[in-house]
Amino acid sequence: MSQAQVSDEEIFSGHEGGKLSVTANRSITQARDLSIAYTPGVAKVSRAIADDAALAQRYTWAQRLVAVVSDGTAVLGLGDIGPSAALPVMEGKSVLFKSFAGLNSIPLVLDTVDVDEIVETLVRLRPSFGAVNLEDVAAPRCFELEERLKEALDCPVMHDDQHGTAIVVLAALRGANMVLDQALADQRVVISGAGAAGVACAKILRAAGAGDIVVLDSKGIIHEGRSGLNPVKERLAADTNSGGLRGGLAEALNGADVFIGLSSSTVDEGLLSTMADDSIVFALSNPDPEVHPDVAARHASIVATGRSDFPNQINNVLAFPGVFRGALDAGARAITENMKLAAADAIASVAADKLAPDHIVPSPLDPRVAAEVAAAVAKAAEADEVTD
Amino acid sequence: MSQAQVSDEEIFSGHEGGKLSVTANRSITQARDLSIAYTPGVAKVSRAIADDAALAQRYTWAQRLVAVVSDGTAVLGLGDIGPSAALPVMEGKSVLFKSFAGLNSIPLVLDTVDVDEIVETLVRLRPSFGAVNLEDVAAPRCFELEERLKEALDCPVMHDDQHGTAIVVLAALRGANMVLDQALADQRVVISGAGAAGVACAKILRAAGAGDIVVLDSKGIIHEGRSGLNPVKERLAADTNSGGLRGGLAEALNGADVFIGLSSSTVDEGLLSTMADDSIVFALSNPDPEVHPDVAARHASIVATGRSDFPNQINNVLAFPGVFRGALDAGARAITENMKLAAADAIASVAADKLAPDHIVPSPLDPRVAAEVAAAVAKAAEADEVTD
Repeated sequence: MSQAQVSDEEIFSGHEGGKLSVTANRSITQARDLSIAYTPGVAKVSRAIADDAALAQRYTWAQRLVAVVSDGTAVLGLGDIGPSAALPVMEGKSVLFKSFAGLNSIPLVLDTVDVDEIVETLVRLRPSFGAVNLEDVAAPRCFELEERLKEALDCPVMHDDQHGTAIVVLAALRGANMVLDQALADQRVVISGAGAAGVACAKILRAAGAGDIVVLDSKGIIHEGRSGLNPVKERLAADTNSGGLRGGLAEALNGADVFIGLSSSTVDEGLLSTMADDSIVFALSNPDPEVHPDVAARHASIVATGRSDFPNQINNVLAFPGVFRGALDAGARAITENMKLAAADAIASVAADKLAPDHIVPSPLDPRVAAEVAAAVAKAAEADEVTD
Repeated sequence: MSQAQVSDEEIFSGHEGGKLSVTANRSITQARDLSIAYTPGVAKVSRAIADDAALAQRYTWAQRLVAVVSDGTAVLGLGDIGPSAALPVMEGKSVLFKSFAGLNSIPLVLDTVDVDEIVETLVRLRPSFGAVNLEDVAAPRCFELEERLKEALDCPVMHDDQHGTAIVVLAALRGANMVLDQALADQRVVISGAGAAGVACAKILRAAGAGDIVVLDSKGIIHEGRSGLNPVKERLAADTNSGGLRGGLAEALNGADVFIGLSSSTVDEGLLSTMADDSIVFALSNPDPEVHPDVAARHASIVATGRSDFPNQINNVLAFPGVFRGALDAGARAITENMKLAAADAIASVAADKLAPDHIVPSPLDPRVAAEVAAAVAKAAEADEVTD
């Protein structure tokens, strides 16, 4: 399917009136139904929960409800467009939570960009939901916000632009390495972009045992001693670039095994030609990849993008529905590094049955993915002892 | 239907897993659907809203979404049981919004009872919803909270325990007066209870032209000069009790035409015998009316309760779905006194076709009610020029 085939008219009519509905699980047709769902019956349920708080888990929807939270400061490639304009994306996210993982979720878009205020708001709303999918919050504020929310809330919290992307990138890299018979430990991975996704990718790849990771921001390679680094990048500098590279993309890519594009910059074809043999190129910028996949394919053995109209689509939807489903199924109070690694392995395992250079990840529509991810994440949650 | 016929087992199983689901308006089965509802298609919709904020009304669900908000401090007859235990009631409310008025709504229960904090939280969430149904907040805090929210939010806000109840009581009184050929202007109405519902009933009955209203709290008749009155009751004292009555229920009911019970106290049969001929008794305390309807019927010509197992059930569900539907249909920025009066008249008009002493209000299940109320409320909103 080519994206060009979807007309603007079709897109806008697909959003008319919003994309979500709240429906009743049991219909109200007789006085009896009213007596059960509302007064006087509901009083017995409320009283039971007042007497035993744990019963809220069983008799309300909150425990398994995902709040999809955004301040609208980093929406897709559009930037800081504000909470109202971000809402269609959050509704879309809720559509995917339901479609792929059967989870209820509600979009909560916030008219504040203050970390303290966002944390405070969600703490006050805590009894209303069971997990937080943080979305489209600008870096570096997103890092602090996610950390603060994880401390403040005793439920799964995940900034999807960071970890959803990181999980799928790792899964795709595992797939590519299986095809090429390479090992992550032996590779130099170059990540272009030190925003939410770049930072999280570096982190998960380290956790997964990557040999060397070099991260670049708009000023070039991040290395120890570079002046003007914010705390997040300072930590990156300490944890990556074991070879001590300096300079720009040319220096980073020369002899590198993997390129992961997570910025909106472009990559010159000449630079790709300096990469190692059997190189891997993930050009994930949307809607315009850092390099056209056909061009990248002249130099790389495996190419992936974020787009649905080329092979190997690296899309967060492979991760977040199953990650939250697994965390909630397990009654997890947090989403740990091992749960993310398990999610990546599960995605890779679904692709494994027909691995090929143009099939390193499953299709986003493959119904096995969310189920496998959920099972693996739930198992990891139990192993990490973060469940109730 | 008798309430006794609904078993605890049936009630609890009716709440298992919660009573609500969030569903997608259009299913995701092909890559094309994903491209429309999520990336890359959704970017066009978000960009369009960023360019023209008014388009959020058309392409998101927020504008017609009701937030059902509670801090859990005055839940049914159970009192201050907290936000988690209040949630089943809020979910029930959302079930009724959908069942009776086709409206989407989300329960938001708050872990704070501070008026400033609740207002602040909803102001921050403003882009997420289109109206606020405030619910089960204790008096007198509920009065300040509602006023503050009405000032802070440019959308319909209504505390249902106040105004939903008041609207239905007025509708029922109109029905009773039609049956008995009495006029509100000539009646003395005694309201027992000066909480959320009592105060709002006094207010709407005054607006509807009641001749005399006497309100009692736990200390007796509220009159000017009574010491220790809070500001809300001071205003009540100034606006009601034109006859200057003092004392308790005995003094209030002697010769009164209408009794409206909105507290959990009981009324002695002897006192009812002192009311005027053809008196009207609304014993609305739930689940135990102030007086059993069979006892009240020995003295009153018309008797109503809040219960579904006796005739003339005075239930908020007759009002709130249609009120919010009408306000949202009209694009109203507020819910005015005229909109509430119009709602009461609309409910009374639906009952009018088969008025009888045991049919002064329509059944809560009568599908005409919400539609008629919505139409009348929308018309009143336009007349009051509170629409966009």
